[in-house]
Amino acid sequence: MHVPELIRRKRDGEKLSADELRALIKGYTDGDIPDYQMAAFAMAVYFQSMDSDELGAWTDAMLRSGEVLDLSDIRGVKVDKHSTGGVGDKVSLILAPLAVAAGLKVPMISGRGLGHTGGTLDKLESIPGFDVNQPVGEFRRLVDDIGLGLIGQTGEIAPADKKLYALRDVTATVECIPLIASSIMSKKLAEGIDALVLDVKVGSGAFMKDVDNARKLGETMIGIGQAMGTEVRALITDMDQPLGLAVGNTLEVVESIATLRGEGPEDLTEITVELVCEMLDAADKVDDRDYTKKMLYELLQDGSALHVFREIIEAQGGNPEVCDDPTIMGVADHVVTFGAPKAGVIEHMNAEQVGLAALELGAGRHTKEDDIDPAVGLVFRKKRGETVEKDEPILEIHHNGKGLKDCVARLEKAIRIGDGPADDKPLIIERLG
Amino acid sequence: MHVPELIRRKRDGEKLSADELRALIKGYTDGDIPDYQMAAFAMAVYFQSMDSDELGAWTDAMLRSGEVLDLSDIRGVKVDKHSTGGVGDKVSLILAPLAVAAGLKVPMISGRGLGHTGGTLDKLESIPGFDVNQPVGEFRRLVDDIGLGLIGQTGEIAPADKKLYALRDVTATVECIPLIASSIMSKKLAEGIDALVLDVKVGSGAFMKDVDNARKLGETMIGIGQAMGTEVRALITDMDQPLGLAVGNTLEVVESIATLRGEGPEDLTEITVELVCEMLDAADKVDDRDYTKKMLYELLQDGSALHVFREIIEAQGGNPEVCDDPTIMGVADHVVTFGAPKAGVIEHMNAEQVGLAALELGAGRHTKEDDIDPAVGLVFRKKRGETVEKDEPILEIHHNGKGLKDCVARLEKAIRIGDGPADDKPLIIERLG
Repeated sequence: MHVPELIRRKRDGEKLSADELRALIKGYTDGDIPDYQMAAFAMAVYFQSMDSDELGAWTDAMLRSGEVLDLSDIRGVKVDKHSTGGVGDKVSLILAPLAVAAGLKVPMISGRGLGHTGGTLDKLESIPGFDVNQPVGEFRRLVDDIGLGLIGQTGEIAPADKKLYALRDVTATVECIPLIASSIMSKKLAEGIDALVLDVKVGSGAFMKDVDNARKLGETMIGIGQAMGTEVRALITDMDQPLGLAVGNTLEVVESIATLRGEGPEDLTEITVELVCEMLDAADKVDDRDYTKKMLYELLQDGSALHVFREIIEAQGGNPEVCDDPTIMGVADHVVTFGAPKAGVIEHMNAEQVGLAALELGAGRHTKEDDIDPAVGLVFRKKRGETVEKDEPILEIHHNGKGLKDCVARLEKAIRIGDGPADDKPLIIERLG
Repeated sequence: MHVPELIRRKRDGEKLSADELRALIKGYTDGDIPDYQMAAFAMAVYFQSMDSDELGAWTDAMLRSGEVLDLSDIRGVKVDKHSTGGVGDKVSLILAPLAVAAGLKVPMISGRGLGHTGGTLDKLESIPGFDVNQPVGEFRRLVDDIGLGLIGQTGEIAPADKKLYALRDVTATVECIPLIASSIMSKKLAEGIDALVLDVKVGSGAFMKDVDNARKLGETMIGIGQAMGTEVRALITDMDQPLGLAVGNTLEVVESIATLRGEGPEDLTEITVELVCEMLDAADKVDDRDYTKKMLYELLQDGSALHVFREIIEAQGGNPEVCDDPTIMGVADHVVTFGAPKAGVIEHMNAEQVGLAALELGAGRHTKEDDIDPAVGLVFRKKRGETVEKDEPILEIHHNGKGLKDCVARLEKAIRIGDGPADDKPLIIERLG
């Protein structure tokens, strides 16, 4: 294999064979292909893309660069969800127990967040004692016994992706749909799942700023799933304003528990139910979507989903009493309100600026090494489309004495009040696959 | 300076500032910017190009990464020529002495050839004793005293280009007009010249296979010259068949000496005269091109140009007697002829295949480390458009027992005989600048 020739062919828009792509990934993972050749190749892919055959082989090679879980001996249909991430996105914490209550198995391997607020792992770690670092054998046992496991990525999952991601990060090749899609899919498909549902977020607080690109990303991941024989669905959902009312790690766990009890905000509950319905459909367990959704709302109302959450907290070393008394996770020292600068309708609430406002308080990370403050964050009392009087509190700021001024400045930029009408965007924008 | 951000902006088609481009080159030369970032940047440039402002700054930074000769205290107009290379291209050996005889100074720093036959340095080294490795001080003295110096590139000229070229070679970013143009110009402008004439060759035996790309390369280099305040002209010339009759190092020196005596092949003489006329014009020394060309033919006929060649050979340690008895350079052990496989008109003579035929005999290098055999090569008796009888010799093969069979196989592919008409292409295709 002559690597410059493979780079040249991709540069010139030619299609590479599965063997050639596998050799590139293997050579790169083994250190035989240097970073500079992979950097040039990634930039060529940025411009020339890869088709679904190529992406299937590329993703397969990345996932096979490390450990691939085989959960075939565990009974039930194993389905996971992946979100491209957004502000206030605590869906996984509610969705995984709800899906299990509805009869699925959910082997969920999550990441930590960079920017805005923490990721699923950071949120789970707000629960005293909760241990996201479980060995693979224990993870299998959890999925088998309780129906789900909530752990962090191990070094053995898709090491090629880890190496390539670090390179893309410093060579301006992150924003490339085929590379994003194959990165996500290589990690998710290494979980040994039967089906996957994607929540592709679009809007100011999401990685994808417009629906066309979100659709392209969703379709690309569905194409990879097809090439690799895994059922993949995608919902494109709104991330122009924060999801739910809470932004910040502990505050989002509190809101998740309320939602698992059937008392959550409407948008968060709806999106979770839609995604679980899609997971069930992908597992061939839906005859009538309306009936299924009604059943899922009941599983929240009757405490079934919360019961599963209690079980997994206990099984992973956490204190399940948080489900009854969330204050044991700790609270911020100070709570102040952010009042409306004038009377009117909240026309726009820029999710990205809201996320950055929470970041100022210490809710998220600037760099991988930063510590996060689990207790700080924002709790909204009003959202887009609601009417406010002058000085009426729009939200609470939970802080520990850090970043308040910068936080407020961000919020002033984020929230636009006027005569209306407010931006009107559906929560579920499109269904793919 | 955040390098990934610069790569991203180039990737997205934005224009970078002169300071940003200088910082990239400096950081790369100093080792602060790793190869993988420069590889991604080069691939981004492949797709998004650079405009003339950017290329001016980029080239200037590359040339200033090393030594820049200042010949301003040497009297006269300093003009050089650069050819993009072709089969049988021995123009420099004739052009430099002729230009000096016509009143110019020619500080010529040349490269070695890779592929086909050797470069100018290899040809000069066929002359016993000729030393192309002259220190910079001696080079200045030669240009001042004799009017020209014929030396090889030193490590101090444009080290950034040297490093970048090696990287481009292994990352499929060689075939990129802005990078080709800036690479050539950074080296040539480091010579401290007042003007430069480019011979952009196009055709089967050239790097550029079509006129559009050749024109683009020529115009790009002229643009760099404008940005940097150096007068640059370009001729686009035919390289669909070999130039002159000889291909091979010693054989080309023999032909060059004949041409310097006014007894050379018509095409070689014409192209050399045209290029020197362009050099004189760039130096503002031409009123009437026809008159100038007539004068240049006379300088060949009356021995003036050959006299300069004798002087420079002697000054650089070579034996000037080669001008009277070229056989002292040595000859190949065997000479066989290649006869026409059938009667007809030579319709086509593929220069690339002819070059590769000479390479089979040992006239050129496969890799930088290969030695070349100066004596071997080809001497044509017939060229494109001429009529041959069956078995009539088309050319002589001068060999030393190596590669004859493969050479003949290449020639059989290279030469097409038919009922005519032959390909008819002008020698000078276009004049730019």
